[in-house]
Amino acid sequence: LAVRLGDLAEALETELHGDPDLLIEGVGTLQSASAGQLSFFSNPLYRRYLKTTQAAVVILSDEEASECPVSVLVSDNPYLAYARAATMLVSSPKNDAGIAESAVVSDSAEIDQTATVSACCVVGQRVRIGPRVFIGPGCVIESDCEIGADTQLVARVTLCRETRLGVRCLIHPGAVLGADGFGLANDQGRWVKVPQLGRVWVGDDVEIGANTTIDRGALEDTVLHNGVKLDNLVMIAHNVEVGEHTAIAGCSGIAGSTKVGSHCTLGGQTGLAGHLTIGDNVHFSGATLVTRSFPHAGYFSGNLPAMENGAWRKMVARLRHLDEMAKELKIIKKAVKALTGGSDK
Amino acid sequence: LAVRLGDLAEALETELHGDPDLLIEGVGTLQSASAGQLSFFSNPLYRRYLKTTQAAVVILSDEEASECPVSVLVSDNPYLAYARAATMLVSSPKNDAGIAESAVVSDSAEIDQTATVSACCVVGQRVRIGPRVFIGPGCVIESDCEIGADTQLVARVTLCRETRLGVRCLIHPGAVLGADGFGLANDQGRWVKVPQLGRVWVGDDVEIGANTTIDRGALEDTVLHNGVKLDNLVMIAHNVEVGEHTAIAGCSGIAGSTKVGSHCTLGGQTGLAGHLTIGDNVHFSGATLVTRSFPHAGYFSGNLPAMENGAWRKMVARLRHLDEMAKELKIIKKAVKALTGGSDK
Amino acid sequence: LAVRLGDLAEALETELHGDPDLLIEGVGTLQSASAGQLSFFSNPLYRRYLKTTQAAVVILSDEEASECPVSVLVSDNPYLAYARAATMLVSSPKNDAGIAESAVVSDSAEIDQTATVSACCVVGQRVRIGPRVFIGPGCVIESDCEIGADTQLVARVTLCRETRLGVRCLIHPGAVLGADGFGLANDQGRWVKVPQLGRVWVGDDVEIGANTTIDRGALEDTVLHNGVKLDNLVMIAHNVEVGEHTAIAGCSGIAGSTKVGSHCTLGGQTGLAGHLTIGDNVHFSGATLVTRSFPHAGYFSGNLPAMENGAWRKMVARLRHLDEMAKELKIIKKAVKALTGGSDK
Repeated sequence: LAVRLGDLAEALETELHGDPDLLIEGVGTLQSASAGQLSFFSNPLYRRYLKTTQAAVVILSDEEASECPVSVLVSDNPYLAYARAATMLVSSPKNDAGIAESAVVSDSAEIDQTATVSACCVVGQRVRIGPRVFIGPGCVIESDCEIGADTQLVARVTLCRETRLGVRCLIHPGAVLGADGFGLANDQGRWVKVPQLGRVWVGDDVEIGANTTIDRGALEDTVLHNGVKLDNLVMIAHNVEVGEHTAIAGCSGIAGSTKVGSHCTLGGQTGLAGHLTIGDNVHFSGATLVTRSFPHAGYFSGNLPAMENGAWRKMVARLRHLDEMAKELKIIKKAVKALTGGSDK
Repeated sequence: LAVRLGDLAEALETELHGDPDLLIEGVGTLQSASAGQLSFFSNPLYRRYLKTTQAAVVILSDEEASECPVSVLVSDNPYLAYARAATMLVSSPKNDAGIAESAVVSDSAEIDQTATVSACCVVGQRVRIGPRVFIGPGCVIESDCEIGADTQLVARVTLCRETRLGVRCLIHPGAVLGADGFGLANDQGRWVKVPQLGRVWVGDDVEIGANTTIDRGALEDTVLHNGVKLDNLVMIAHNVEVGEHTAIAGCSGIAGSTKVGSHCTLGGQTGLAGHLTIGDNVHFSGATLVTRSFPHAGYFSGNLPAMENGAWRKMVARLRHLDEMAKELKIIKKAVKALTGGSDK
Repeated sequence: LAVRLGDLAEALETELHGDPDLLIEGVGTLQSASAGQLSFFSNPLYRRYLKTTQAAVVILSDEEASECPVSVLVSDNPYLAYARAATMLVSSPKNDAGIAESAVVSDSAEIDQTATVSACCVVGQRVRIGPRVFIGPGCVIESDCEIGADTQLVARVTLCRETRLGVRCLIHPGAVLGADGFGLANDQGRWVKVPQLGRVWVGDDVEIGANTTIDRGALEDTVLHNGVKLDNLVMIAHNVEVGEHTAIAGCSGIAGSTKVGSHCTLGGQTGLAGHLTIGDNVHFSGATLVTRSFPHAGYFSGNLPAMENGAWRKMVARLRHLDEMAKELKIIKKAVKALTGGSDK
């Protein structure tokens, strides 16, 4: 796909400094882009590559425009403009609609004629698959699932019974939606399974990463609202609810019945305990453990960054006595106060 | 399924306050249950829904019986009684026994006539599958595996060679049992693979979550005893042994050769180092890192709950100097002692 | 396979104390090895089993040779020598070359005649599969992938389009290579997908654990160099680069664009933030969170080991006031200095 630079500028609603008749074909990084390709500058870490880029055109913000030796597209949000440009410039592979010979599809499944069901898929009873849906190879769709228009299951995705996906979702390989939640009642030391009767309900424009698992609800549904984005190896337990446009990075886990608001971000390896309420616009940095509700917007952290092993050992040893240290400090404070005649300043 | 309330009370060994001839059909939460449905009350967080419930009958403990506007079943352990009631009231889907046409089954596999092998499964040589076993779609059972009666593999489960599952196990999609352990010897900076020759041995009534992995032993077996329950995305390394009725929540990991006792619980994201011994009735809260053995029963923790990012930054900065703080405190203590004539009280 | 002990000693370049004509068949632990089997001693934890072993021969270091009641092979690196011995003594199953009937293979795929493609695999367009490659059951290989000689995909592995594997790699079940990276641009609160156009490039002799995920690059490639070893449930984000012979234990995650050097080790559940540079020979203990670059060799840690729950609660409560404690200490120090006339010693 070759696009005229002037047309690209217009489509992206960016200001062009350069030749509108230049043809742009493809994208690249500042270091690797060749003549004819578009690049972008948004992370200051890579500033050193800006002055020597061989790209045809660079998307950047107003402040950097003068530093760039080639044509520029000025944008308030260069990364966003780049995302749109790349989507325009790179063609995605076309799939032939239809059901592969090796797919095993129940007679009662309703599959739109424009949908694709690839090789070695298994589709259960009463499944409904909408227009232009792509089911990649090796997927298992259990009975009574519903998949909205234009949703894509890349490969080897499992949807357990009654899972509902909205439109334009993208589910990566190995993801499992709708497995039983971890519901156990204790009978004098032995665990008794609590039937998991709810479903997984996924809204529109949701992306779910590779090998991520989302359990079905115990009684009511586990819900991912519109625009939720989950990275790989994320664990969403039963009856969790994740609000619109919340993004959760890799290896994070949310325990049962916790409600997360809209427009939140969870850094990688974050863990949320069960039965919490997290408000809108709450942000947790990576590897944070969340054990209480955070109903109001804010930025929260809780972890111990790496340090040299010897220093860390000393610190941990001291930490074990922190309570005693605090008590001693109090006593000394009192003693000093007495010595100084009531003032400790 | 409709069950007479009197019959239900008897089967659950609960005390009924209400009309024994009421017919109960299905279950629901306190908020959502409709007339004819059974609900339960066990988590005080949801007390507010008790007084306005529309359920036909609620399972609860003696203290709450008077607060409930509808019929009640009084139980010492309402959640357990609910688990049993739900199992009685909700029918599970029936599977047709037999081997799907698209399944690829070795001639030397012995499959009970009452077992199900679903579409796109691959079953290797000398595999033995017991009565009423359900192998869902897309499973791979390598050679010499053994699966006990009534065990269910939901879908896309992998059992590597020689894996042994007891009776009444339930394995969720994407789980991998019997992959090689992470055994590496170092040869002047290069890693040399150590053959992994043990097996995975799983007892009876074990549940294993979605995308959980359990590695085969290096020489002897990795063992999960009867009644062990593993949530999703749990990692069990080679030669780990997990005792009876121990439950491990999502995203936890246990490193090689660690032995965990019976009736333990591990919160989500807990990590156990290798070669440890954990006794019976040991409980770790979520996201705890365990670096030494805990041979005796108890409740242990080790993590840093989330706080406001600015406060956390200050705390971490201070932590880096905790050893110096402790030393200074000691010096000051001595000085104060000298000033006060030997007493620092 | 039976091997003469003298031949084994020679092949392993170890010094034999014992009868060179003994025939060795198989391997076992010090406790379980029977007459005719080889064992090894390298972990002092298991010293108590050395004196009573029934093994035919034990590989160990010079210092322990005199403690062992049976024949010994003396080695500077007993674990390495054992790894080699076990590889010689244990036969691995042979696979029949060829393409299974139930595999679905594109006409344009080039598959070496000595390669195996097992049941229920799906192989896309223009895929190239080298000599003696083993593709186990249920794998999905998308278009334009390339797999080098002698590489093995055990079962149910997914290679997304354009993934490149070198020679002698071993990929365990459920691993997903080449899924989209988590690239999102924010448009006034809504996430817009950034096309992920790079590939996954894997060198030679790389091992990748069960259910591990390695995302494709955004523009350039995600790279695992020769000899990299990844355990289960590891998450490698887009554009990460891992240097030669680096080993990463289970449940670890590396965020986008971080470069890890050669000969590093990451303990289990370790997390690396994005855009960092980790030098060669850097070692992180388990559950360490890495938020800054560590360009130089060393051993680093950052976590809070488990302690009794009550003590931990007190410690966490004190930690929340650590900044105030530090400030108070400073004030008291000053006051004491004034009292002692300028000296606080």
